[in-house]
Amino acid sequence: MSSTVQKAGAEFLGTFWLVFAGCGSAVLATSAAPGDTGAQVAIGWLGVALAFGLAVTTGAYAFGHISGGHFNPAISLGLATAGRLPWRELPLYVVSQLVGAVAGAAALFAIASGRAGFDATGGFATNGYADRSPEGYGLAAALLIEVVLTAVFVLVVLGTTGPKGAVGFAPLAIGLTLVVIHLISIPVDNTSVNPARSIAPALFAGPAALGQVWLFIVGPLVGGVLAAFIHKGVLAHREERA
Amino acid sequence: MSSTVQKAGAEFLGTFWLVFAGCGSAVLATSAAPGDTGAQVAIGWLGVALAFGLAVTTGAYAFGHISGGHFNPAISLGLATAGRLPWRELPLYVVSQLVGAVAGAAALFAIASGRAGFDATGGFATNGYADRSPEGYGLAAALLIEVVLTAVFVLVVLGTTGPKGAVGFAPLAIGLTLVVIHLISIPVDNTSVNPARSIAPALFAGPAALGQVWLFIVGPLVGGVLAAFIHKGVLAHREERA
Amino acid sequence: MSSTVQKAGAEFLGTFWLVFAGCGSAVLATSAAPGDTGAQVAIGWLGVALAFGLAVTTGAYAFGHISGGHFNPAISLGLATAGRLPWRELPLYVVSQLVGAVAGAAALFAIASGRAGFDATGGFATNGYADRSPEGYGLAAALLIEVVLTAVFVLVVLGTTGPKGAVGFAPLAIGLTLVVIHLISIPVDNTSVNPARSIAPALFAGPAALGQVWLFIVGPLVGGVLAAFIHKGVLAHREERA
Amino acid sequence: MSSTVQKAGAEFLGTFWLVFAGCGSAVLATSAAPGDTGAQVAIGWLGVALAFGLAVTTGAYAFGHISGGHFNPAISLGLATAGRLPWRELPLYVVSQLVGAVAGAAALFAIASGRAGFDATGGFATNGYADRSPEGYGLAAALLIEVVLTAVFVLVVLGTTGPKGAVGFAPLAIGLTLVVIHLISIPVDNTSVNPARSIAPALFAGPAALGQVWLFIVGPLVGGVLAAFIHKGVLAHREERA
Repeated sequence: MSSTVQKAGAEFLGTFWLVFAGCGSAVLATSAAPGDTGAQVAIGWLGVALAFGLAVTTGAYAFGHISGGHFNPAISLGLATAGRLPWRELPLYVVSQLVGAVAGAAALFAIASGRAGFDATGGFATNGYADRSPEGYGLAAALLIEVVLTAVFVLVVLGTTGPKGAVGFAPLAIGLTLVVIHLISIPVDNTSVNPARSIAPALFAGPAALGQVWLFIVGPLVGGVLAAFIHKGVLAHREERA
Repeated sequence: MSSTVQKAGAEFLGTFWLVFAGCGSAVLATSAAPGDTGAQVAIGWLGVALAFGLAVTTGAYAFGHISGGHFNPAISLGLATAGRLPWRELPLYVVSQLVGAVAGAAALFAIASGRAGFDATGGFATNGYADRSPEGYGLAAALLIEVVLTAVFVLVVLGTTGPKGAVGFAPLAIGLTLVVIHLISIPVDNTSVNPARSIAPALFAGPAALGQVWLFIVGPLVGGVLAAFIHKGVLAHREERA
Repeated sequence: MSSTVQKAGAEFLGTFWLVFAGCGSAVLATSAAPGDTGAQVAIGWLGVALAFGLAVTTGAYAFGHISGGHFNPAISLGLATAGRLPWRELPLYVVSQLVGAVAGAAALFAIASGRAGFDATGGFATNGYADRSPEGYGLAAALLIEVVLTAVFVLVVLGTTGPKGAVGFAPLAIGLTLVVIHLISIPVDNTSVNPARSIAPALFAGPAALGQVWLFIVGPLVGGVLAAFIHKGVLAHREERA
Repeated sequence: MSSTVQKAGAEFLGTFWLVFAGCGSAVLATSAAPGDTGAQVAIGWLGVALAFGLAVTTGAYAFGHISGGHFNPAISLGLATAGRLPWRELPLYVVSQLVGAVAGAAALFAIASGRAGFDATGGFATNGYADRSPEGYGLAAALLIEVVLTAVFVLVVLGTTGPKGAVGFAPLAIGLTLVVIHLISIPVDNTSVNPARSIAPALFAGPAALGQVWLFIVGPLVGGVLAAFIHKGVLAHREERA
């Protein structure tokens, strides 16, 4: 049985890694500017998708046996709703995740500032819709895709970490789900499905990003709760439902 | 033992995810237009291949212990032919898959419509040959590649989910097979090997797509049945063949 | 215990899949011609590397429990040298692999011919050095890299399929090794490490390709034998060495 | 129990493979020169990230049961600090790693020389900061990112190879962590997190590279030790901490 300190440490480290890796790859290694030296070899949306997803896979293999490896308030809320996380532990998880995410964004900010001309207000891997959507998608599209994708994400968590899940494969399946989620939705709103991932970089990017961050709190939380109800209502085995 | 409702729910959700993820990545995140803002960072055919295949891997890890995780009428037919799925369950599987696929395409349609200038008749990730082939391949090439690739796909399903398959690895192997299938055949006909995946987007793309959809029903179903006979005739162990 | 027919069938199917998938992705989905419609979204060397490697991973998960899943004469020779395959079974393996490879190349030829302007003499995913090297590498570089990479490849096979290998992970590790091998050496000689993969497309591409195919038989076979001696001399546990 | 010779051989081979694969993919298969024949299909930073990471995954599956599969002095030092490697074995590991890395760089040098116009002083996949950073990042950014990323890397090693790690998955998780590390930091300093990987190519690239190599020794070693203290202080279970 892991202690409170261990669980908080695991959630802090995992969310630090998720934000540092995912937002880091987007800020440092993706470029759409044709004149840029690295444009020809830059990793693009596919590289960012792999960075976000595999950060979760690797963090969950490293720290998941301590805390469960949520690294995401929408997952913690979904698991609490589904009866898999005691409600009294939820605040500890969410606070650890938020602090870890902010620490990850701060470390990234320090490193990104080591290149001349860096300006966090230019994006800093924040989420956005309408004028802040990478490809011009509106508010409704962003909200809908966040709810749908977070619901799928939490259904995968519930299915792979339940009593019938294949032993050892849950971190792989969960992280690969996040890869796929990014492959679909980066162009729409830069992909959240995780309020901690959205809040942290927005703190560094300024008012325009912060003004839209509510959608990336509401959408994922609604999706996570929705998943818990679908799981309990349709998929769960009798013993689990009782 | 999972109930009928659980199985239908699992096949619905998995096929929803397959179509939403695979067609979604193709519609939202791939671009060949050089002037497009995202062209430099778009995910290309490689990203679409990963989205389709890893959607199946993750869906099968999440829901496969309930229904077997087919998400594809050609797989269900192949498994029934090979004696792995009771024939009386086949209609339930196929209907759940078709409804899930249409729901996935509908959700994608709603989101894609959130960008100005979207027009589903321009493709919407449908399959096609001749004038509708991405790179100009004819009807015979499309039919042949669908039969061959679906046969390999179902042989992998039969081999990895049989009594000698490595425990826990089937969803990984099956999804990665679908990745490879897409890496070969997107240029030929946009890759089906799955009638549900082909029918659903065609309903939104209009008559031109619907007029060719028969090939993506016939080819995969023939390939799936062919695989069952190859498996039983050449590969299966004595006890399974008897 | 699998029968001779089952083993031959498994090696035929696996090598068919390797050649159809790997050479198929190269022939159908990679393009360096800037004016090509698909150039912007083509899969590039990275996609081809994944197709070759993941074809082996998936084929080995599907058929490996029957035949061991070699799909490659250099692996079969290396395993025989290391005492893991009875010498008397070697001919069956090699013949099955060669026939499977030719069948895969023939199916690919039929499909590729379905596009106007296709010409197999233009390459057809054959291996080559000097004037036939993708990036102009000479004979010595090609020979050296084939020996080194095949030696590593067979060392991974010996290490992961031996008594101490992690149960279930060998197909994944072996296929990912082939991915890495391609990421290094496609520019040098289009990557062989497998005589069957080299001979089959050369039969369709004509005299220029056939005139160089000896190097892609000699290099991989030398590398495979070298790996067996390194394994037995340095790495193998006492019981295995005795 | 593996002998000293076996352990040295395993660490030599694994580090040879890491350097040959990772630096090899960078030197041979990545190109930013728009006029280059292969520019359109080159593997880019994403391909290099996969080559480095999957070389570690595959090497660890092949040789890890003999030596633990470190292939990196920063990992060996971190494990010794955490009490997982006897201090008296550390010199053997580090020497084997350095010799393997130099052998890998030498083999790559021989092959790369097989193309007209090759010049190792042009980079040869060495690490660098300031004027030698791929995208112009300064010394402080490079040092910070090496410490942070190596700390995460070694935390993953400690978490996945400890008593609670999922059996069989450690090589996968560790190698995928290295993939993610490269997706973030290639543009900053070409990514080290491994003194052996940094020293070896610098010996071939000349004084400019050698003059900066100290940072890629200090940074990773500090990160590795830091990880050991974080692990022992926050994450480790009581029995392990005692």
